Amino acid sequence: MAPQWLTFLSDYGHEDAFLGVCKGVIARTAPEVRVLDVLHLVAPQDVEQGAAVLASAVPYLPVPSVHLALVDPFRATPARGVAVRTADGSTFVSPDNGLTSLAWDACGGAVEAHVLDNAALWHPTPARTFRGRDVFSPVAARLAAGLALAEVGTAVGVDELERLAVRPPTVESDHVHGEVVQVDHFGNLTLNLERAHLEQAGITLGDEVELRCSGKSLVVPFLLTYGEVGRGRLAVCEDSFRTVTVAVNQGSAAQRLRAGRGEPLVIARRTSVGRGPVVLPPEPQVLSAR
Amino acid sequence: MAPQWLTFLSDYGHEDAFLGVCKGVIARTAPEVRVLDVLHLVAPQDVEQGAAVLASAVPYLPVPSVHLALVDPFRATPARGVAVRTADGSTFVSPDNGLTSLAWDACGGAVEAHVLDNAALWHPTPARTFRGRDVFSPVAARLAAGLALAEVGTAVGVDELERLAVRPPTVESDHVHGEVVQVDHFGNLTLNLERAHLEQAGITLGDEVELRCSGKSLVVPFLLTYGEVGRGRLAVCEDSFRTVTVAVNQGSAAQRLRAGRGEPLVIARRTSVGRGPVVLPPEPQVLSAR
Amino acid sequence: MAPQWLTFLSDYGHEDAFLGVCKGVIARTAPEVRVLDVLHLVAPQDVEQGAAVLASAVPYLPVPSVHLALVDPFRATPARGVAVRTADGSTFVSPDNGLTSLAWDACGGAVEAHVLDNAALWHPTPARTFRGRDVFSPVAARLAAGLALAEVGTAVGVDELERLAVRPPTVESDHVHGEVVQVDHFGNLTLNLERAHLEQAGITLGDEVELRCSGKSLVVPFLLTYGEVGRGRLAVCEDSFRTVTVAVNQGSAAQRLRAGRGEPLVIARRTSVGRGPVVLPPEPQVLSAR
Repeated sequence: MAPQWLTFLSDYGHEDAFLGVCKGVIARTAPEVRVLDVLHLVAPQDVEQGAAVLASAVPYLPVPSVHLALVDPFRATPARGVAVRTADGSTFVSPDNGLTSLAWDACGGAVEAHVLDNAALWHPTPARTFRGRDVFSPVAARLAAGLALAEVGTAVGVDELERLAVRPPTVESDHVHGEVVQVDHFGNLTLNLERAHLEQAGITLGDEVELRCSGKSLVVPFLLTYGEVGRGRLAVCEDSFRTVTVAVNQGSAAQRLRAGRGEPLVIARRTSVGRGPVVLPPEPQVLSAR
Repeated sequence: MAPQWLTFLSDYGHEDAFLGVCKGVIARTAPEVRVLDVLHLVAPQDVEQGAAVLASAVPYLPVPSVHLALVDPFRATPARGVAVRTADGSTFVSPDNGLTSLAWDACGGAVEAHVLDNAALWHPTPARTFRGRDVFSPVAARLAAGLALAEVGTAVGVDELERLAVRPPTVESDHVHGEVVQVDHFGNLTLNLERAHLEQAGITLGDEVELRCSGKSLVVPFLLTYGEVGRGRLAVCEDSFRTVTVAVNQGSAAQRLRAGRGEPLVIARRTSVGRGPVVLPPEPQVLSAR
Repeated sequence: MAPQWLTFLSDYGHEDAFLGVCKGVIARTAPEVRVLDVLHLVAPQDVEQGAAVLASAVPYLPVPSVHLALVDPFRATPARGVAVRTADGSTFVSPDNGLTSLAWDACGGAVEAHVLDNAALWHPTPARTFRGRDVFSPVAARLAAGLALAEVGTAVGVDELERLAVRPPTVESDHVHGEVVQVDHFGNLTLNLERAHLEQAGITLGDEVELRCSGKSLVVPFLLTYGEVGRGRLAVCEDSFRTVTVAVNQGSAAQRLRAGRGEPLVIARRTSVGRGPVVLPPEPQVLSAR
């Protein structure tokens, strides 16, 4: 029988034993389940970041998996727990706060949902401030071990689930307003826009564009990859998830522009008179047997 | 046959390959064993912190497990290695420096111990400064794979093992002196006291208390969870491990109070004249199907 | 059948989902393979550091393993991907940039190599900036699951592979010029030299030496382990991988000397008149059953 995968994304970090304790509960509950860590350094309580990361990662995770996602800001009435089945047979276990909603589409869309209200599956005396350990982990482990979805609790319509609205970019005739959605380990800035948005503003691959960000205005090339500019140079390019990114070759765009998640920026077509045609550098040949 | 779990706690961090190398030794020695990481960011050489974390985590880890714990400050005479069996069948492998002593009680108490002096189980030429790799990891792996406890070396009485003394709080008629035992990833401060200690000082749930810490004096509520105060507000509350905690809802108490591990603090009953009754806010309903 | 190990070293860090996504691809491609994390905090694009860490770690990793190593600075022509088989049956999958070259010797030397040019094993539309996910991870997973080495692509002579030159120390009659190769989690500085280099300069165990580093000149003992000096004191000693290290007992030599990777330093014989014989402290007895 194939391994039963439980993927795990959270804002728990690595400085205390919260993560280890949840893995302990999963191992006690369903020792045959294998845990795959997606990310545990989501910014504390940042549901939007967690949702964006999970949506971009899920096409590369095992199918079917149980995806346990735990970013759970305290609210006057805490978000209920839900388990959501998607068309490809994947299951998302998380607070009903939109955290997994961006990932559902990548899995064919949500088709069935249940509230986690079957307390028989929980720790007998769950702590209010650590539902990850006492409710979500044991339920996710049971699901990964084969428990029927309906066993976790009351059915709820998928239309009643909370969904995140993604702020779209604003496309004008000669520029696009976007924002930084993610900063990766290398300092690359992932934006909330794709190449098509730039093309709608008359910007095409190979152009030089004006990049306005953090009070700066810079002229940078729009290229397929940041590898096409010199070391330490900025570029607007397409990242490995097909979204537009601002990057510095062998450096950190986040440091260079002093920009973080949520930072607004504008990418504008350059209209200066006399600009000659931009010559697109030859595309690097990947994995050539030089 | 059930998986054989080896849980692993250390102060090795993640910036070099020490941890990977120990896992390599475990995999070479006993490939069938599964490793569960509890925490590797114990502060360097901080045996007390490691002991406190392990004791709070162990009730949630698989039973039986071999618990490998490696925080090993250099001493003139290094702590001998020991393997300690508890009443529930768990086994703790660590230096004999008290690191696992707080966890034994949670596992029914220590019932058998052996010094790790059977060098046939070690790396042939163990390095003095990396016993984790050359002695503790291979011995723990062999135990997790089923080796009899007596094989690791000379028996020693459990009363001869080093134990940590936990500094208890001091309870006065109207206040309690405690200290910060742990700071978690979210900046919550776990104290060395439980709700009963506060009640002995005449403080009950729902009271406002005076919190003295780092030269500050603040009036904060004593509530069941920090979710009951507004965003960014301080509260004294019970954490998910049933110990008293100072927390900021969606913020960091460690930053707010500039307090770290070992910081002393006082929680005092407020006796000001004219204070009306404190109304406990309604308890949030967890996981309600709103 | 024995588990099939895939060890993984990279500069991906833990702040985004790059690592989780690669593990997802491995799990999708070959669910039976077990991943062992060696290190993911290699400094961004630092091939030399990655190579040094892998070479020191590999003697402790399972044999045979597939060793996936991903530190891949963008170059005008990106390094081709290669799979290198060593005499002990291990397989190294990485860019052909020298990253794994220092580890081959520890595995008996490279005996066979193939360029990763069989695109049938890759993601159908590989991203240029994330070959780790789209090329290296699926190929490494297939190899760990038993794919014949020749299937990954065109054979290439092992003499045509890129190799890193290790900068050797310069040994003079009474001093040695070296540099810091690694800084570990505890702040110990691993140098590019062994005890024999110091002995060639007339320095023997137990001597006091002059250590010149970062503009400072200090007199420190050359001892077997840093445990032989007092708490907070500097020592030159041998580390657990048999290389010379500068360490502070229960402290950080990196902080004390403000020295990082690549920092040059000199260890010189002390020739001052009238220096009496140095008495080597007794060697600590490791794991004594006191």
